[in-house]
Amino acid sequence: MKFLRFLENNKIKIGYFDGKKVVELSDSIESLLINCHNWKYVAKKVQMSYSLDDIQFLPPIVPSKIICIGLNYKDHAKELNMEIPQEPRIFLKPPSAIIAHNDSIKYPEMSDEVDYEAELAIVVSKDGKNIGIEEAHEYIGGYTILNDVTARDIQRKDEQWTRAKSFDTFCPIGPVIETEMDSKNQNISLTLNGETKQNSNTKNMIFSSAELIEFISNIMTLNSGDIISTGTPPGVGQMKRGDIVKINIEDIGTLSNQLI
Amino acid sequence: MKFLRFLENNKIKIGYFDGKKVVELSDSIESLLINCHNWKYVAKKVQMSYSLDDIQFLPPIVPSKIICIGLNYKDHAKELNMEIPQEPRIFLKPPSAIIAHNDSIKYPEMSDEVDYEAELAIVVSKDGKNIGIEEAHEYIGGYTILNDVTARDIQRKDEQWTRAKSFDTFCPIGPVIETEMDSKNQNISLTLNGETKQNSNTKNMIFSSAELIEFISNIMTLNSGDIISTGTPPGVGQMKRGDIVKINIEDIGTLSNQLI
Repeated sequence: MKFLRFLENNKIKIGYFDGKKVVELSDSIESLLINCHNWKYVAKKVQMSYSLDDIQFLPPIVPSKIICIGLNYKDHAKELNMEIPQEPRIFLKPPSAIIAHNDSIKYPEMSDEVDYEAELAIVVSKDGKNIGIEEAHEYIGGYTILNDVTARDIQRKDEQWTRAKSFDTFCPIGPVIETEMDSKNQNISLTLNGETKQNSNTKNMIFSSAELIEFISNIMTLNSGDIISTGTPPGVGQMKRGDIVKINIEDIGTLSNQLI
Repeated sequence: MKFLRFLENNKIKIGYFDGKKVVELSDSIESLLINCHNWKYVAKKVQMSYSLDDIQFLPPIVPSKIICIGLNYKDHAKELNMEIPQEPRIFLKPPSAIIAHNDSIKYPEMSDEVDYEAELAIVVSKDGKNIGIEEAHEYIGGYTILNDVTARDIQRKDEQWTRAKSFDTFCPIGPVIETEMDSKNQNISLTLNGETKQNSNTKNMIFSSAELIEFISNIMTLNSGDIISTGTPPGVGQMKRGDIVKINIEDIGTLSNQLI
């Protein structure tokens, strides 16, 4: 199922996309994610559906934290001539950076070099701590797309990556959370004004979703709705004002944003 | 006023400490902070007060993000033989790391070197973006104490500081939020098992609260309840299991935690 949050007639609504239209639900996203492994659970439908043209996408989730992974694609490590890391390198983006599908990324005054980074993001279904690899799937509510927008000049200048990755609008997520997909074999690609810039498959990941859940939950409690972004494949590069950046992940769809 | 959140009879309550007892209020902490500059605002008292012995402290605020500052004391820069930075260096701690006054800091298995760092923390009163120095005071709801607990061995090993500073329990805050104090002249000290380890004054800060609010809000929107921790003075060092760490800031009080 492709769950989403959207604005319709100035009201925040929850629904799923059935391939043609958006069907409204009365559940919260959190309860949908917690119940995504419960086959007996029946989502509560409201007798309303909408065309994609009539809704405004919202970020599909409002997380308490966004944990991102540095180098996590073998082909990206090769491109950078770097060794495969022995363990994941983590950093945080603030929730205030989140924007939705179709929202604009704003060029910060402090920077002259803003890059895209296409990423598959895990959405955590329920609170957990010290989660083993075998049980990790129980904590995965679904997957969405995340653009880890980065002010590369500031990243080079600062010792820590926080400022470079924390500007408002630097965390587009969406358009939906897909609850049923094989995260280990998904084509992931990014186009800039229609030209393909990143093109890989999640099978090239160094650390799997389950391994990331285990590693991170040994450090910090994961909370329902938290996002773990799994790193970017080769081909990261610069955007300029006016560019339209689209990230496609096979079973999720396309996240599109313009840099202004 | 010294506002706090506490547990009494298994219920989460809000109140203020009058120097002797805790007086319960029916306001939310957020509305108290937003109204802290409004002299006409009268907090709604519940006709109940408690002895400090009868309550369990909770973190005085639940922030959407915690922004911390690297080197920000002139005397600490001197101790480290480092130059005074030209602009603040920021990093984030996750909200999941927060614990309250009297809660235990847990030694993580991954680390063999856990350090204390005494800090004065700003609590943001209302949402804001691109806030100028002159108006910064309007966005400061009050101040609390924060112990920026750090796994120093992991900090040295990782390029990014996130893991070292994000373990559960690595962000003790409290005991109260003081809404009326001069943040530019506060003695700040830390004792480990009664022995003084850090002892400075906030007048040694490189960047003031107002300068930090301006700098950070030019990067990201500050939200009501967010915490900005203003860096630590000289004397940071290691703790061992069983140690009791106490941070005192003149007009706020004492934040006490044991490492277990």
